[in-house]
Amino acid sequence: MNGAESLVRTLLACGVDTVFANPGTSEMHFVAALDRFPALRCVPALAEGVVGGAADGYARMAGRPAATLLHCGPGLMNALANLHNARRARVPVLNLVGDQATHHRPLDAPLTADTEALARTVSAWVRTSAAAHAVGADAAAAVAAARDAPGAVATLILPSDCCWDEGGVVGTPRAHAPPAPVPDERVQSVARLFERGERMLLLVGGSALAKGLGAAARLGRMPQCRLLAPMSNARVARGRGQAAIDRVPYSVDAALKQLAGVQHVVLVESQPPVTFFAYPGKPGRQLPPGVQVHVLAQPDEDGADALRRLEREVELRADEADDPEANAPARGPVTPEALARSLAALLPEQAVVVDEGVSVGRAMYSALAHAAPHDWLQLTGGAIGDGLPLATGAALGAPGRRVVGLQADGSALYTLQALWTQAREQLDVTTVIFSNRRYAILQGELAAVGAQAGPAAKAMFELQRPDLDWPKLAAGFGVEAARADSMERFNDLFAHANARRGPFLIEAVL
Amino acid sequence: MNGAESLVRTLLACGVDTVFANPGTSEMHFVAALDRFPALRCVPALAEGVVGGAADGYARMAGRPAATLLHCGPGLMNALANLHNARRARVPVLNLVGDQATHHRPLDAPLTADTEALARTVSAWVRTSAAAHAVGADAAAAVAAARDAPGAVATLILPSDCCWDEGGVVGTPRAHAPPAPVPDERVQSVARLFERGERMLLLVGGSALAKGLGAAARLGRMPQCRLLAPMSNARVARGRGQAAIDRVPYSVDAALKQLAGVQHVVLVESQPPVTFFAYPGKPGRQLPPGVQVHVLAQPDEDGADALRRLEREVELRADEADDPEANAPARGPVTPEALARSLAALLPEQAVVVDEGVSVGRAMYSALAHAAPHDWLQLTGGAIGDGLPLATGAALGAPGRRVVGLQADGSALYTLQALWTQAREQLDVTTVIFSNRRYAILQGELAAVGAQAGPAAKAMFELQRPDLDWPKLAAGFGVEAARADSMERFNDLFAHANARRGPFLIEAVL
Repeated sequence: MNGAESLVRTLLACGVDTVFANPGTSEMHFVAALDRFPALRCVPALAEGVVGGAADGYARMAGRPAATLLHCGPGLMNALANLHNARRARVPVLNLVGDQATHHRPLDAPLTADTEALARTVSAWVRTSAAAHAVGADAAAAVAAARDAPGAVATLILPSDCCWDEGGVVGTPRAHAPPAPVPDERVQSVARLFERGERMLLLVGGSALAKGLGAAARLGRMPQCRLLAPMSNARVARGRGQAAIDRVPYSVDAALKQLAGVQHVVLVESQPPVTFFAYPGKPGRQLPPGVQVHVLAQPDEDGADALRRLEREVELRADEADDPEANAPARGPVTPEALARSLAALLPEQAVVVDEGVSVGRAMYSALAHAAPHDWLQLTGGAIGDGLPLATGAALGAPGRRVVGLQADGSALYTLQALWTQAREQLDVTTVIFSNRRYAILQGELAAVGAQAGPAAKAMFELQRPDLDWPKLAAGFGVEAARADSMERFNDLFAHANARRGPFLIEAVL
Repeated sequence: MNGAESLVRTLLACGVDTVFANPGTSEMHFVAALDRFPALRCVPALAEGVVGGAADGYARMAGRPAATLLHCGPGLMNALANLHNARRARVPVLNLVGDQATHHRPLDAPLTADTEALARTVSAWVRTSAAAHAVGADAAAAVAAARDAPGAVATLILPSDCCWDEGGVVGTPRAHAPPAPVPDERVQSVARLFERGERMLLLVGGSALAKGLGAAARLGRMPQCRLLAPMSNARVARGRGQAAIDRVPYSVDAALKQLAGVQHVVLVESQPPVTFFAYPGKPGRQLPPGVQVHVLAQPDEDGADALRRLEREVELRADEADDPEANAPARGPVTPEALARSLAALLPEQAVVVDEGVSVGRAMYSALAHAAPHDWLQLTGGAIGDGLPLATGAALGAPGRRVVGLQADGSALYTLQALWTQAREQLDVTTVIFSNRRYAILQGELAAVGAQAGPAAKAMFELQRPDLDWPKLAAGFGVEAARADSMERFNDLFAHANARRGPFLIEAVL
């Protein structure tokens, strides 16, 4: 058994059965092993950004890691931005990078790069296998490292000789650390806070959002308490039957206004919120000065369980919330608000919503709070170009569920190659392109940093001259697509897309 | 004057007047300054891979650096692979990366990453500006570092507060190190080698290839001497009136066969050749065992001058070579050989050929040796996805010359977003897609590493199910395009494309 076969057998033994791949020469023995192990599904991508984002999306839905398969330092370079998003999402990803043979590396061949240094920028765990016999054990260790709560990118670098040499040994699956239970004292300490009646913010993130918010929502309806999620979250269970949760606003002004008067913040698998960027003369921290920060659960602890226990300790004084009536789909011109209304009305049951809507998308989150039950995945690390890959991976991680991508046009252009993988694998993904033909968020940011812009600066934010033609781009990758210039047309296309199998793309022209 | 304005003024003072940009919030003050400095041309790109490759292509043709403008660590991540190619090309690139404000970085906002560690993987010089007053001097130092012979990527990281704070000081242009002259003793020592009459290889790379090969070619026609270039080169002056030079073959077997019996290799701005990858049981070094290696010029030395001096020291015994007769364009079915023949016949005068033809492209280099005079740029670092960006930058670095991209389909898909920049800037680029609808090189590599592949493995190398439609993809980005299913059609399209202004794409279906 060569090292590559020991790797494949170890992956399957460890429950990793999906690989997103853009392989090269150094990965050939792994690829050659695929025919002997049909249980391993290998999904090709045209660019490594798709690989990184798809592995993230898969993990968010499947709750266990997919593997990547990347080619040398430069292949890893192209995947880094979406692995950065996966790192921020705290999801498990087994990042496999083939590399120069051990004896070839000192020759500094053209593709040679500092693969370990690159890997460390996104990974909690990095190892380079030293020989074929070590590959299986290394892979088992990498899977465990990826799965240690709450989840992380674990990178295993595989020199090609370690894959082709004989002497491979299948690795034994290793236990990974589950979310740790929160100590009783901490639950009781937070319970006493609630009893003081001072104004509180319960800031719930991480896996506690993915599991449903029952306890958190009931606590959050107490008169002195406010419930929020961070701005960016890996997965939120939402829709009818689930409690709604708002997010900390993007801007520091809006956040400080919303949180004015809060005396305590209780963190559940979250961090004190900060702005994405600094702005001249404004604070970067979004909590009011003087607020006391308390930790109920760290990101590697079981926040959902802690919230249930907290609920039992606290005498609840809150009413049940009702789902509001559903609205009819919007008609007339295409606007962000109209799109939000139609999406809320027409979202398929158990959809997986992937939100990289950026500026237009901000209208969507609250509008869809009472849509059909769904999971909401979003960009977590701010590295745009995650949406189409994330949707691709989520479709494979949640088979049988429709994935609905809410996608800004500018962001979609970074990794539009994901459309080909969606077509090739016939994934049930409906992509809605919010086609405003500009980097609208940057127009806002320009004002926010206090800079004055003339025509030359403004031209840098326009996706015009020429306009991008999304139906043609999608068709070029083999994905059926159409353009919606009215909400009537959008509603028809959206219903049609969700009723069929395979991918479909709608360019909603704003 | 804020830091951003001092940066722009310094760039212009240092002769940097072209910026390839995919900016974000942290670069807003730089963008805002554009309207006050119309001499600075800022070229937007839809993805950072385009930015890195375009800066490389610009430098190869203009002989001086363009700047990039990238957004935080993740923006840099996306540009790294093509900056890796620029590093291997040894060309000057001023790599500007906006980043979190100094006081915001400790808050670990979502986009925060280890920007310096990322930069070090591709850069000879890395600095993070500490304050607005330092930005100008830092930028001047960065330009000099980029231009020190032979050329390198110099990365300047700009925390956003260093750009928006007042107190900017324009940096004074600094001298950069020109190529050093080769000492006389070394020239004479190599001259004595020639007089021994033993079998020699003159391996000429770097800037010596870009300046024309007169002396090297005459030396290379001596009976005991063989002249070759490395497999991968930043720029070669070629075509009628220029001496032809073959390259070291890609495979180790072919190289060892070709170099059998060679007793001495003389390096001119080159390294002893090694294979891209290791293969089981084969050597990685492409020189026969026992060959003696002599250095005439290091990469930072003036190899062309050394060759001219060497020629004067050696008593030449070689005939002049003649350009062969030109062939007519090919007719009939589209094949690599037919494409090579038509390209050789129809190449426009003073074209800039950008070769990322990969497997199909291998037929092109020698076939075009006696075409119209042209420069030949190629992938240098093995990180595919360089061709379309390189062509984009080369068009801006060599205005008035037609750029002809010889482009493998698989590689083109990594960074096809470059087409939009070509359309927006109306660049004179003709892209020929070699559409074989597979990663043909990997099919060869699979065999070369001795791996057996079944249908599942082979499917990983197919760009089919669905086929990619290049005319649609190009049109989606605003570039006119057409498909050639015969050489007659190809010849017509190629002539048409080169006679017009602006970009055009031809899908040559193999």
